Amino acid sequence: MHSFKIKSRIWIETENGMFLGNGRVQLLQAIIETGSLSNAAKSLKMSYKKAWNLVDSVNKNAAQEVVKTSTGGKDGGGAIVTEYGKNLIQKFDDLNAETIAFLNEKTNQFEK
Amino acid sequence: MHSFKIKSRIWIETENGMFLGNGRVQLLQAIIETGSLSNAAKSLKMSYKKAWNLVDSVNKNAAQEVVKTSTGGKDGGGAIVTEYGKNLIQKFDDLNAETIAFLNEKTNQFEK
Repeated sequence: MHSFKIKSRIWIETENGMFLGNGRVQLLQAIIETGSLSNAAKSLKMSYKKAWNLVDSVNKNAAQEVVKTSTGGKDGGGAIVTEYGKNLIQKFDDLNAETIAFLNEKTNQFEK
Repeated sequence: MHSFKIKSRIWIETENGMFLGNGRVQLLQAIIETGSLSNAAKSLKMSYKKAWNLVDSVNKNAAQEVVKTSTGGKDGGGAIVTEYGKNLIQKFDDLNAETIAFLNEKTNQFEK
């Protein structure tokens, strides 16, 4: 007899499609860590164009700005995640943890 | 302001990896509908070999047999999903519905 484990993945959509999922949250966290979109993209081995498109999609669909970018300077401009954005990441992480706890409680349904 | 919707996907793993997810449940349902593994595979545009491997993996990791196959006959043998297997599908569908309901209740966390 094997033991079962219920696994899950969650993501947030708007009427325009994907808004926030693991990949986008990971990108936002990399922006917080590196301070720029290009370094965040590099750290995730993602093209700058793809990272830019993801951030643009998050910004356009959120109630408030999530990532603020500044152009110019010797490092080609920085990026920061706003307080609103950090709060969004926290909510997503909390919801993920709550879902995992909810499903862990249900695991015994599959034991026999 | 956009409205948010929390989406989810669940699956069941054992220590050997994937045990039951949307794709495998869909295959089991196609076996119930068509009465054979080859017809079930065809209806899902899946190779017979892939369908056989999926069923074999489910059978090997379940507490009891989920799919019973018989060989021979003019149709090349039939396949049935056992009562245990039908019960497993029901549990999976119920758990999926419960997860969706759980997350729908949380949706308002993302509204502002």
